[in-house]
Amino acid sequence: MSTETGWDIIENSFSEEQLVTTGSNFMIGNGYMGYRGTFDEWEADRFVACIVTDTWDQSEGSRWSELCNVPNGLFTQLYVGEELLSAFEGSTQQYHRALDMKYGLNKRKISWLSNAGGHTDLEVEKFASLSNHHLLVMRYELAARQYETYKLRTGIDGRVWSINGEHFKSYDSYEKDELLVMELHTCELNTLVVIAEGVKISGPQAVSSAIVEEDKRILREYVFELEQNQTVVIEKVVSITHDNELKNPLDSGIKYVTEGLEQGYEQLKSEHQLKWDAFWDVSDIRISGNEEAQILARFNIYQSFIATPTHENLPVGARGLSCQVYQGAAFWDQETFNLPMFVFTHPHIARRLVAYRHDTLDGARRKAKKLGYYGAFYAWTSGKTGDELFPDYFFTDVLSGRPIRNHFNCWQIHISPDVVYGIWLYYEATQDWDFMLQYGAEVIFEVAQFLVSRVHFKKDKNRYEIIRLLGPDEYHENVDNNAYTNYLSQFSLEKAVLIYGQLALNEPEILSRLMDITGITPQSVEEWKEIAELLYLPQPDPRTHVIEQFDGYFDLEDVRPDEVRQRLINSEEYWGWPNGVAVATQVLKQADVIQLLALMDSFPKNVLKANYEYYEPRTEHGSSLSPSVHALVASKTNHPEEAYRYFMEASTIDLYNASKKVMSGGSFLGGIHTAAAGGVWLVIIYGFAGFELLKDGAKFQPALPESWESLSFELVVKECRIQIELTTNDISVTSHSSNKKEIEIELADGLRFVKPGEVYTSAL
Amino acid sequence: MSTETGWDIIENSFSEEQLVTTGSNFMIGNGYMGYRGTFDEWEADRFVACIVTDTWDQSEGSRWSELCNVPNGLFTQLYVGEELLSAFEGSTQQYHRALDMKYGLNKRKISWLSNAGGHTDLEVEKFASLSNHHLLVMRYELAARQYETYKLRTGIDGRVWSINGEHFKSYDSYEKDELLVMELHTCELNTLVVIAEGVKISGPQAVSSAIVEEDKRILREYVFELEQNQTVVIEKVVSITHDNELKNPLDSGIKYVTEGLEQGYEQLKSEHQLKWDAFWDVSDIRISGNEEAQILARFNIYQSFIATPTHENLPVGARGLSCQVYQGAAFWDQETFNLPMFVFTHPHIARRLVAYRHDTLDGARRKAKKLGYYGAFYAWTSGKTGDELFPDYFFTDVLSGRPIRNHFNCWQIHISPDVVYGIWLYYEATQDWDFMLQYGAEVIFEVAQFLVSRVHFKKDKNRYEIIRLLGPDEYHENVDNNAYTNYLSQFSLEKAVLIYGQLALNEPEILSRLMDITGITPQSVEEWKEIAELLYLPQPDPRTHVIEQFDGYFDLEDVRPDEVRQRLINSEEYWGWPNGVAVATQVLKQADVIQLLALMDSFPKNVLKANYEYYEPRTEHGSSLSPSVHALVASKTNHPEEAYRYFMEASTIDLYNASKKVMSGGSFLGGIHTAAAGGVWLVIIYGFAGFELLKDGAKFQPALPESWESLSFELVVKECRIQIELTTNDISVTSHSSNKKEIEIELADGLRFVKPGEVYTSAL
Repeated sequence: MSTETGWDIIENSFSEEQLVTTGSNFMIGNGYMGYRGTFDEWEADRFVACIVTDTWDQSEGSRWSELCNVPNGLFTQLYVGEELLSAFEGSTQQYHRALDMKYGLNKRKISWLSNAGGHTDLEVEKFASLSNHHLLVMRYELAARQYETYKLRTGIDGRVWSINGEHFKSYDSYEKDELLVMELHTCELNTLVVIAEGVKISGPQAVSSAIVEEDKRILREYVFELEQNQTVVIEKVVSITHDNELKNPLDSGIKYVTEGLEQGYEQLKSEHQLKWDAFWDVSDIRISGNEEAQILARFNIYQSFIATPTHENLPVGARGLSCQVYQGAAFWDQETFNLPMFVFTHPHIARRLVAYRHDTLDGARRKAKKLGYYGAFYAWTSGKTGDELFPDYFFTDVLSGRPIRNHFNCWQIHISPDVVYGIWLYYEATQDWDFMLQYGAEVIFEVAQFLVSRVHFKKDKNRYEIIRLLGPDEYHENVDNNAYTNYLSQFSLEKAVLIYGQLALNEPEILSRLMDITGITPQSVEEWKEIAELLYLPQPDPRTHVIEQFDGYFDLEDVRPDEVRQRLINSEEYWGWPNGVAVATQVLKQADVIQLLALMDSFPKNVLKANYEYYEPRTEHGSSLSPSVHALVASKTNHPEEAYRYFMEASTIDLYNASKKVMSGGSFLGGIHTAAAGGVWLVIIYGFAGFELLKDGAKFQPALPESWESLSFELVVKECRIQIELTTNDISVTSHSSNKKEIEIELADGLRFVKPGEVYTSAL
Repeated sequence: MSTETGWDIIENSFSEEQLVTTGSNFMIGNGYMGYRGTFDEWEADRFVACIVTDTWDQSEGSRWSELCNVPNGLFTQLYVGEELLSAFEGSTQQYHRALDMKYGLNKRKISWLSNAGGHTDLEVEKFASLSNHHLLVMRYELAARQYETYKLRTGIDGRVWSINGEHFKSYDSYEKDELLVMELHTCELNTLVVIAEGVKISGPQAVSSAIVEEDKRILREYVFELEQNQTVVIEKVVSITHDNELKNPLDSGIKYVTEGLEQGYEQLKSEHQLKWDAFWDVSDIRISGNEEAQILARFNIYQSFIATPTHENLPVGARGLSCQVYQGAAFWDQETFNLPMFVFTHPHIARRLVAYRHDTLDGARRKAKKLGYYGAFYAWTSGKTGDELFPDYFFTDVLSGRPIRNHFNCWQIHISPDVVYGIWLYYEATQDWDFMLQYGAEVIFEVAQFLVSRVHFKKDKNRYEIIRLLGPDEYHENVDNNAYTNYLSQFSLEKAVLIYGQLALNEPEILSRLMDITGITPQSVEEWKEIAELLYLPQPDPRTHVIEQFDGYFDLEDVRPDEVRQRLINSEEYWGWPNGVAVATQVLKQADVIQLLALMDSFPKNVLKANYEYYEPRTEHGSSLSPSVHALVASKTNHPEEAYRYFMEASTIDLYNASKKVMSGGSFLGGIHTAAAGGVWLVIIYGFAGFELLKDGAKFQPALPESWESLSFELVVKECRIQIELTTNDISVTSHSSNKKEIEIELADGLRFVKPGEVYTSAL
């Protein structure tokens, strides 16, 4: 792979072994749909997919509620003579596949020789529109390099793959007003999904054309007879609509396609590009001195963005919209890995993500109630309603073939405090009090109530404890007083007390309404206070400064991941609960204490350092979330080489196919690791630039990687847009001239109030 | 097998397949040693063993601290010509092996034909002396039926088996004053064990005699040339002594053997028989109408008795002294299954067993402390010191070969309340206030303190809970508010409050000393009171009357054991934690609620009935403890047929070799199920006779099995000896004329005070 502009990723040779990964890496999307970067002629067996958010459905006999992979409206097969143009047949010359990240364009350009000697040039470009998120748009140009007969089959291919069974119980396809239409209904919830497709062809007329209906397909079949160097251009406009979003998805889809065809490819593209310009205007991170780092930064920002729904309050999936794995659902990653970038670059998108947690509060209430608690226990795997989508049985014991009862759904309670963490981050960064009134407070109160129902008081120790937990380190289920969970829980309770106080003072009517809704009383607030005060928080050991991950962790066998790996009987074994090789050892999937220190600014540097040095060698990084957090804390604790190594691990997981697993026994396990992508932003901004949010502004304590000459980026902090320019010698922070107030900036030279248009430069 | 007298068990043919089981069933013992009912010429490969209590030692590399199998001082091989007399060679005529349970005698009588045609009659009798528990005594008579040359090798065979490795690091053997002596030192604790052996021979003189030393053996080798019908009788007296009991085990052993030889076999036997007479005088249960039941009752009483140390305060092993399995250590079975028989027949023996728990209090304190608690957390597997002998890893996952971390040692906390239950049972039955002052109170206080440190308070529910438990039903680890544990814990706390109050009133000095020792304060007692009052006790469902075994039990998959059995991949799989087939189902190893109802008289009949009917079909009886408890509760709830079926299951586990496992992959798993043996007494007395202890006496609500014509037995209740005679029509209770006071007896005809010598007869 290479880059020409620092904005594109170019592939100059095709590898069949990589097609799962490249399908993800070259994908396009807009937060509504993710369209994998596959080839036009490919079918289900090569993992062509268009995953659409807000289409959760459970196929028959499956335990997974997941997003639908909808029929492929861009499906286009070209027969050169009798031969299908394909990477696997004939001979491909000048192979070129590219992702233009600046504008979310997938490009393909090849010269193809058929076995019969025909020479055809093909150039394809497509995008998922940012200006109308329902639209997929493609320009398909074919040029004959000698006289040739072509048969072009293009239309809607409904023979899509689905990892857990068929999601559509009906496929109705027909032609209407020159558009092809496929109406589908999902199996479980009867959601109506409509694919409408239209084409505009320029160049020589087809000698014949027909509409062909096959099983789950409706296609146009054109025959072209082209002279040497004649060119045909097919512009395709495809809409994907469904009635979870739109009242009348059929009419809307037809309207979008009809209008799109009228506008034409270039016009559609130019509107789309304006939106991308607006995005990158704030979101770009510029790195000089290291082109690889530059492209990796942009790739991860690009993937983070296209994974994130912006049109409605919906979750960011753990694999975004790159595939069905992880059900297109939000995990705790959303708040801890994905949210921060949006909070500090596009707060209106962040607001949607946090509002989503309010929208799904009833699901969290239902989950709490079902498990014998009250308040809000957020789903470990959260789709549209917030009801728990995670099944009781997740992993399979590969040695026995028996399913394992994992307790991600019921013991990993930190999800609820994590949601509060996200709300608070958004609120602190934006001062969006209106959001707090409308959404935030209710969630915070309900999480506090959940914690009241979840904690236990140890009278003899005069402290509250939280028992039977699973922390982010998923190898150790069933632990008590997990440091990460307890600290975050205390954080949540403190915020509940704080917000209650502010509401009581300033918004008694809203408070009264919230008390009616949630059932909380002044007594509840006393309970929150008491628990926050008496909740056991494992402290740094006075001698070593290390915080114990959970009660008894230090008593576990102290070995390293490599040794534990050697104890595997089967390399596919799960290392964790209930009887995996890591369970009785100190070996971690990811380090909870490091995660805690990455989120909380309240620990002194020596504690950060001691914990990093203790936990790092014991961490296996079995989670794609782990490397970025380690990079961040390594950077903050003066371990620049490890910081950079972990940064590279996090940022290349997908692009370099460095993930532990892509395929397993024929199952698709690929897709974009959205949290890792979000984590890359965290490493650069929190780690290398040393960003810290202050009460009225921002602080930077940079530690620029050795190979980087400069780093610049923008942030939106406390409603002020600031631009940060960082070199090996100094840092300057510019307050955007459009800002409406001065902002407090702390650099090595001290704390200053920077007025709109002013620059504050400091030596490092 | 057959019986002639109702006191003996006779085997008339030998089965090699049954030798593990018959070795246990025909064993002799005296609570100090258990000598397996094997043949004189056998060696380690046929599981000859003499297990001696109070010899706990851990062999090198083992995780098991277990009792030693000491060298076999009765080892005797007879060569007829060149041929070893053996069940496996030549031809055995008139085979006869018998156990005389009235007097603890093992008998063997055979006519044996060598391949060369020699005909020899052999008659052997042996016993483990009840009058001097260090002595094994044997009479070995051989008679030639034609002229024959015999070589007799008899002495001490130190080549014994040990299931977890060699326990002796040195074997010193020598002859001294015509005795053979073997001195051994154990590997871990350097305990000195001495075997001394002497013989007295009557009949024709040996033509030659020699002492032969072989590896770990010292033997006498005699050659006899016998004419037709000449008989030689060898009396052997063997002592087994060790320095955990005796200051000078060598001198003592030599003295015991020397004196024993002087007394001679018949005198030794007659003193021994007097002791047995005294035992059976109170302990016999007479059943008419069903000889099988009669013999089973006696067999189980016999095995219970010989398993129980009476010379010192020592535990009853879960396999008694029948083998090394379960480490000769006490489990909760001691209090719940074995203790009651002694409490109500030989209270001085019961006193030793409960005093043993006081002697091991420091071990229980150490265990509590090690696990982060205080007070006394009794060992799941308790040997001499009361330190936990149960290893962290017990079962092996047969599918992976990987050890399983079972939590019997740390989550099965009911052991501590069970110890209090035992103390209270003894105290209630005997009124032994002196015992309470000297032993009981301290244990009860320390268990209460342990519970204080173990419980959690749920403020929002205003109740105490006990979290992360394993109840008697070992298939469901990691449960909360296990009914059995919570009820027993409350029971313990109430007793602590009660005893504290009595001491404060009557024995302030003793209380003050106990407070010094235990560190309890008046505040502690307030804590006990509060926890006893607010501890969550799962109540019978108002509609169904069923008590939930633990939080969430009713939500588990409701299937039956047979269905779950079909899910096994390997029949050897453990059904329980962490991922066994029963874990996510309602299928139980044994039913905790049934166990609770069997121990506590406070539940009404309809609750007993509802729970029996709910839990019985869901119970797999994977524990040998389970059938007797089911028999007892079935009998109390008007399920006479099931009661009798479970009675038969419990009472035949060993005698009919009905245990689930005897050998597994070459490992010895046999031995006597001591708790089942104790349980048989419980079924007959509590179940069929419907015995209930009253404040000042006893109550009987009989439900005699259909085939039984009468049942009679004695009990010692509140220092009064009573005899119960039960027929199908009536019951009469006689107060022994030696009693010093009247006793309250409740029968169907009402409650009466029965004076010494009086009989109270009531219709049923």
